[in-house]
Amino acid sequence: MLDQQNLIRAALREDIGHGDVTTLALVRADARCRVRLHAKQGGVASGMGVFRGVFDELDADVAEWSAMDDGARFAGGDTLVSFAGATRAVLSGERVALNFVQRLSGIATQTAAMAERVQGLPVRICDTRKTTPLLRALEKQAVLHGGGANHRFGLYDGVLIKENHIAAAGGVGEAVRRAARHAHHLMKIECEVTDLDEFDEAVAAGAQVILLDNMPLDAMREAVKRAKGSGVLLEASGNVTLERVRAIAETGVDIISAGSLTHSAPAIDLSLDISNA
Amino acid sequence: MLDQQNLIRAALREDIGHGDVTTLALVRADARCRVRLHAKQGGVASGMGVFRGVFDELDADVAEWSAMDDGARFAGGDTLVSFAGATRAVLSGERVALNFVQRLSGIATQTAAMAERVQGLPVRICDTRKTTPLLRALEKQAVLHGGGANHRFGLYDGVLIKENHIAAAGGVGEAVRRAARHAHHLMKIECEVTDLDEFDEAVAAGAQVILLDNMPLDAMREAVKRAKGSGVLLEASGNVTLERVRAIAETGVDIISAGSLTHSAPAIDLSLDISNA
Amino acid sequence: MLDQQNLIRAALREDIGHGDVTTLALVRADARCRVRLHAKQGGVASGMGVFRGVFDELDADVAEWSAMDDGARFAGGDTLVSFAGATRAVLSGERVALNFVQRLSGIATQTAAMAERVQGLPVRICDTRKTTPLLRALEKQAVLHGGGANHRFGLYDGVLIKENHIAAAGGVGEAVRRAARHAHHLMKIECEVTDLDEFDEAVAAGAQVILLDNMPLDAMREAVKRAKGSGVLLEASGNVTLERVRAIAETGVDIISAGSLTHSAPAIDLSLDISNA
Amino acid sequence: MLDQQNLIRAALREDIGHGDVTTLALVRADARCRVRLHAKQGGVASGMGVFRGVFDELDADVAEWSAMDDGARFAGGDTLVSFAGATRAVLSGERVALNFVQRLSGIATQTAAMAERVQGLPVRICDTRKTTPLLRALEKQAVLHGGGANHRFGLYDGVLIKENHIAAAGGVGEAVRRAARHAHHLMKIECEVTDLDEFDEAVAAGAQVILLDNMPLDAMREAVKRAKGSGVLLEASGNVTLERVRAIAETGVDIISAGSLTHSAPAIDLSLDISNA
Amino acid sequence: MLDQQNLIRAALREDIGHGDVTTLALVRADARCRVRLHAKQGGVASGMGVFRGVFDELDADVAEWSAMDDGARFAGGDTLVSFAGATRAVLSGERVALNFVQRLSGIATQTAAMAERVQGLPVRICDTRKTTPLLRALEKQAVLHGGGANHRFGLYDGVLIKENHIAAAGGVGEAVRRAARHAHHLMKIECEVTDLDEFDEAVAAGAQVILLDNMPLDAMREAVKRAKGSGVLLEASGNVTLERVRAIAETGVDIISAGSLTHSAPAIDLSLDISNA
Amino acid sequence: MLDQQNLIRAALREDIGHGDVTTLALVRADARCRVRLHAKQGGVASGMGVFRGVFDELDADVAEWSAMDDGARFAGGDTLVSFAGATRAVLSGERVALNFVQRLSGIATQTAAMAERVQGLPVRICDTRKTTPLLRALEKQAVLHGGGANHRFGLYDGVLIKENHIAAAGGVGEAVRRAARHAHHLMKIECEVTDLDEFDEAVAAGAQVILLDNMPLDAMREAVKRAKGSGVLLEASGNVTLERVRAIAETGVDIISAGSLTHSAPAIDLSLDISNA
Repeated sequence: MLDQQNLIRAALREDIGHGDVTTLALVRADARCRVRLHAKQGGVASGMGVFRGVFDELDADVAEWSAMDDGARFAGGDTLVSFAGATRAVLSGERVALNFVQRLSGIATQTAAMAERVQGLPVRICDTRKTTPLLRALEKQAVLHGGGANHRFGLYDGVLIKENHIAAAGGVGEAVRRAARHAHHLMKIECEVTDLDEFDEAVAAGAQVILLDNMPLDAMREAVKRAKGSGVLLEASGNVTLERVRAIAETGVDIISAGSLTHSAPAIDLSLDISNA
Repeated sequence: MLDQQNLIRAALREDIGHGDVTTLALVRADARCRVRLHAKQGGVASGMGVFRGVFDELDADVAEWSAMDDGARFAGGDTLVSFAGATRAVLSGERVALNFVQRLSGIATQTAAMAERVQGLPVRICDTRKTTPLLRALEKQAVLHGGGANHRFGLYDGVLIKENHIAAAGGVGEAVRRAARHAHHLMKIECEVTDLDEFDEAVAAGAQVILLDNMPLDAMREAVKRAKGSGVLLEASGNVTLERVRAIAETGVDIISAGSLTHSAPAIDLSLDISNA
Repeated sequence: MLDQQNLIRAALREDIGHGDVTTLALVRADARCRVRLHAKQGGVASGMGVFRGVFDELDADVAEWSAMDDGARFAGGDTLVSFAGATRAVLSGERVALNFVQRLSGIATQTAAMAERVQGLPVRICDTRKTTPLLRALEKQAVLHGGGANHRFGLYDGVLIKENHIAAAGGVGEAVRRAARHAHHLMKIECEVTDLDEFDEAVAAGAQVILLDNMPLDAMREAVKRAKGSGVLLEASGNVTLERVRAIAETGVDIISAGSLTHSAPAIDLSLDISNA
Repeated sequence: MLDQQNLIRAALREDIGHGDVTTLALVRADARCRVRLHAKQGGVASGMGVFRGVFDELDADVAEWSAMDDGARFAGGDTLVSFAGATRAVLSGERVALNFVQRLSGIATQTAAMAERVQGLPVRICDTRKTTPLLRALEKQAVLHGGGANHRFGLYDGVLIKENHIAAAGGVGEAVRRAARHAHHLMKIECEVTDLDEFDEAVAAGAQVILLDNMPLDAMREAVKRAKGSGVLLEASGNVTLERVRAIAETGVDIISAGSLTHSAPAIDLSLDISNA
Repeated sequence: MLDQQNLIRAALREDIGHGDVTTLALVRADARCRVRLHAKQGGVASGMGVFRGVFDELDADVAEWSAMDDGARFAGGDTLVSFAGATRAVLSGERVALNFVQRLSGIATQTAAMAERVQGLPVRICDTRKTTPLLRALEKQAVLHGGGANHRFGLYDGVLIKENHIAAAGGVGEAVRRAARHAHHLMKIECEVTDLDEFDEAVAAGAQVILLDNMPLDAMREAVKRAKGSGVLLEASGNVTLERVRAIAETGVDIISAGSLTHSAPAIDLSLDISNA
Repeated sequence: MLDQQNLIRAALREDIGHGDVTTLALVRADARCRVRLHAKQGGVASGMGVFRGVFDELDADVAEWSAMDDGARFAGGDTLVSFAGATRAVLSGERVALNFVQRLSGIATQTAAMAERVQGLPVRICDTRKTTPLLRALEKQAVLHGGGANHRFGLYDGVLIKENHIAAAGGVGEAVRRAARHAHHLMKIECEVTDLDEFDEAVAAGAQVILLDNMPLDAMREAVKRAKGSGVLLEASGNVTLERVRAIAETGVDIISAGSLTHSAPAIDLSLDISNA
């Protein structure tokens, strides 16, 4: 996370600009306060580091820091973080810090809910590239905090052949072979398919991971059967909801990926209590 | 929007990194395609410019561009954008372009829904600072596209005195006076209150805008009555839902602000169809 | 002032480039010295923080730091700052540090001279946007240190309708109304006028601040009379000199703004004495 | 000037921030206007390129561009530049463009005044490092436009040994020799002296340029006599005013350097006339 | 290669700084010339794009561009590129352009020499992370141009377990298992071994690629035999010279990686002929 | 070296990207280790500061640091650096740190070999601008560490007139005079010549340094004779090898410059031993 502090700095610049007019006018430079981040609903914590980084970036002179671990579960009313610091920095950083941690804890909580539904089954609940622009690293960590797993980080660290790639390459076999030639030897080749014929074609062509996109449950089961013993991994995607996820997992696929973990996790309601030190 | 292209560039760097392995392996450098962005559900368009900017940044050599205006309404199945361009750039930029436009259209759509509920009443539906870090300018534009209005952009272009500021300043009167001395003469002073006593105190102290936070409807009505003819503006916030928003508006407040416009608008389901040119 | 250290770094890069050839050749890496910044003429101090920041940026290992407060008055011969530090850093940073502090103290001094002329009158002496590119934040602080007040920081945090805007909008009334619709609800609308007819039109249209540009003193007095009790603020600009400023203030306007505070304040003559530690 | 456009961009960001509220509200996106930059007093032009660059940066779609050359003389009332462009960009860029060109033309004008006083004498009027932070390249060009010459650009492209360096090195001879060893072989060694004894010592030690700092005119004359035929260049500095500069030049020194060319040149009064296209 | 132009800009800033004194003094702004890049020795071309980019970055107004393809072989005396352009830009960019293209063609040439030695054998000649800081993307492309293949780009797109990792994890088995749990499902796990016992342990633990580091040829042959049919890939490294590479390849390993391709390829002697247009 | 830490950061970003997958999976966050950088061959040390900076940038919490001075000679087996630090940071930074220090020590070693050949003769062994893009400052320091001297740093801090400049200016005399007028008064003018006629012309025109490019030894000797007592410096370049350098030096030239010091110095074989703390 070499760049996390840069991200925080940019977010603070966006919000504070040439100065926090209200706080500079009303709060003395040497005032200090006690701060408590508490939950108004239950969830899973994520973003403790970026929350802290906001106040460090503003030179809040943080003391008596106490924070939950990322990944910890909390109930409504629980205290996630408490610390003492410079009041100006706390008031100027409050909104940005909350904007980060509410979103990230929302993702961790959403992921945990999904992961619970498949408890006991040997399946990974996985994120996608449907993340917020510039926040991908943080959001993918939130997925880990919620008990999920990460898919590739971007277009650069994994090969995933989709319909349009196949069309451009002129067929599944040719696509898989070209990808294997071009990619370095530590990468597996994943290929998206939409029915069992395409599945067979992709496996025959040497794909090591198959993405079953929006396939019916019985087709998934059949794919699992055909893949057995081959070492080929199966990933399911499309219409992955809390209601359907266990049924999908029970088909025997290895990975279930869901964009909803990141693109539509509701923010967790958190609040900052500030009192004079 | 001097910095929009920088934002796009950063988002593409995040996703593409040292290169889109799959596309470089499978798609010829000179291949071109036709692209159609279509809606899988109804909504209000926002982000057409940033969508286009993604492909320009990748030198997609875009031609035959046709796009809805930001703010236009669309139904499921409608085409929002169509164009022709270089296939490699289209495939490498697709996810980032969608990540932007789905989120922004989601915000515009959410805002429009809220704005419709108060149709005919002289009230502004307003955003807050609860936006995605680094995307504030785009998200605030999306609120405009949906028929809402913008609140201040950040801590630098408006004075809003909250509870903690009042505590630090030692009372409402002192807080409002100090803020007026410090702020430049084009800024109004807004003060948050939670009951009618605080309301009277803030108005007496010279606040020109009052934020009624989480107050009951009848207290809001009373505040409206007391403010009548004074030129003081009233803003309501707290628990603003589609269900409650009209009732709040009917109290006669001038502005209703809702963080949910930006922090929990669900992404609109949009999809890119790509076919050979 | 989130970005002050970036500014200092850029200024040092401009002056030092790949290295201070003379100092590296002649001064040992471990040499330390005592430094005294003293005044060769009287004035008002500004820029103490940026002066210090230059040496910190060069890792001067500053000790025994003692500095006047920004805003303090000094006479010729007075010591503004004294400290001990690494000689290489002191010699390499000297010119940049002086370039900042001489300019900023010049602005504070110029502002104080103007402010003194209107002592006892209820008027603000205000800066403009005629500042040095990239130094606006520092220069606007210098105006505060000299006893002046700030106008808006830029085009983003205040509405000021000028002649060309009015022409583009098709009249004063339309201009003011459009601005009020577009601007957020914490912004007042200021409109520039050049005679009393325009003044009446602007006030009638709802402008809350009127800029009287280059108007004769008796017209200003008349405008003050007409504005009385309306809550409308009056700002005077144009040909604001030390000689004329009190007469302008005595018309009863609320604000007098002068570009000369920043664009033509002569640098204060300051000098750095360096002796072996 | 690889970085001029970056400088312009930073200056525009400083002034425009998230948007020019007034112009966006009042001027239609497709409006165009005619622009004339005219002088309210006489002077020497500088900064035509950066003036243009401001409007290009804002995508003003400039047409019918006509501008004086940098270095041209103008009288009050003269037109320096005329062009047609997008009204929004013109109004949003106006202040920044003027801030640059008024300052730079002020420096060129100040330099020209100084250069005129020494007309006919074989002497260079030279700038110093007393420039505005981040504007050095532009300000040094303005000195050229006014008929002056440039001294070194920074601490990296020339050796100039000052009093404190000599003290640190333990004497003039040792200082000059160390500098010659350390500097690359294309650099001359300049040494500052304050009397004739130091002058002799520096020349004997091998200095190729001598800076006569604040020395009386007859001492300068004596130094010129002693340097004759040696190839050593003499530079005079300190208290260089329009009144004294010719007398200094008549001593026979090769170079006269004056910080006042850049640090206290008054801005030239220029104004932008904008009319509908 | 989203960032190639940024790299070029930084390299030009490093060399040109505030200006190319010699060229600005001696060459007229409107002069144009014809340019020919020719080889003084044979080799394989790489870096044609970055060579061109240097002159574009300097606005050389390049015309009549003709260049070899990257990967093409040339003999001493051959012309690699010819074009016409602005003389100032050509002279100011010459050195930087050559610094890039001589190094990159050196790498391509070195790689081609290695690849030729193993012609006819089913083995990949692969680069390593021993590249020049900040030039990795270009250098890895040069390896492709020379007929080699790329290993992972960095620590982020491939898992390679080395001795110290194993020690930290407490054994080969544990290391491989932990890596598989942590890495996303498109990554293979590679493990470095130094003898056949470690080889067996790593394979048993599930490693999909084995790096045989500095192992004797007969041990490599034995490893190949043991890996047969398992789908496990074998990579050999350590002391890979032109003399030994065929013998290593003949052991049957799949990949041979050599740091010398990038860290010690001698620059190819190329030269720019410039003549008046 | 204001920018050294930025360079390190960029190099680490290039290698680590979004994270070091292997190390994060296998090494505990609180693990510490002992590190020893040792030589596998003899040489001259350079880059100790940048080596350290890599681990500081990764917050390795370095302790018990002990390092050779830059410029120190070492034999195979010697320890250059030893320290204790956080294992994750050490493993993630190892490759980048080695990439820097192996290259820089290679340059210092190459330079020392050249410098030894001319021992006892009054000549400078000098670098050129044939350095690695973006590493010039470090590589030029490595030349100093090896006992060489630096030529100009770039096109901005020294005038060197080459053949193409002369052609553009229309002759040697005109070129030298124009350069002297344009350059500031601390710069000497150097002119490249290829035979004795050009030599005479350049000296007559006032050039203070002459670059004898690829001239035969006896022509160099003749040039030395002609320059005697004039103060003109002579630099020799072209085909400077370990074998020829002493013969060139014995002609009496003042400076010998060799691109091979930087562009083809082989990396020194160094290795990092890591053991548990």
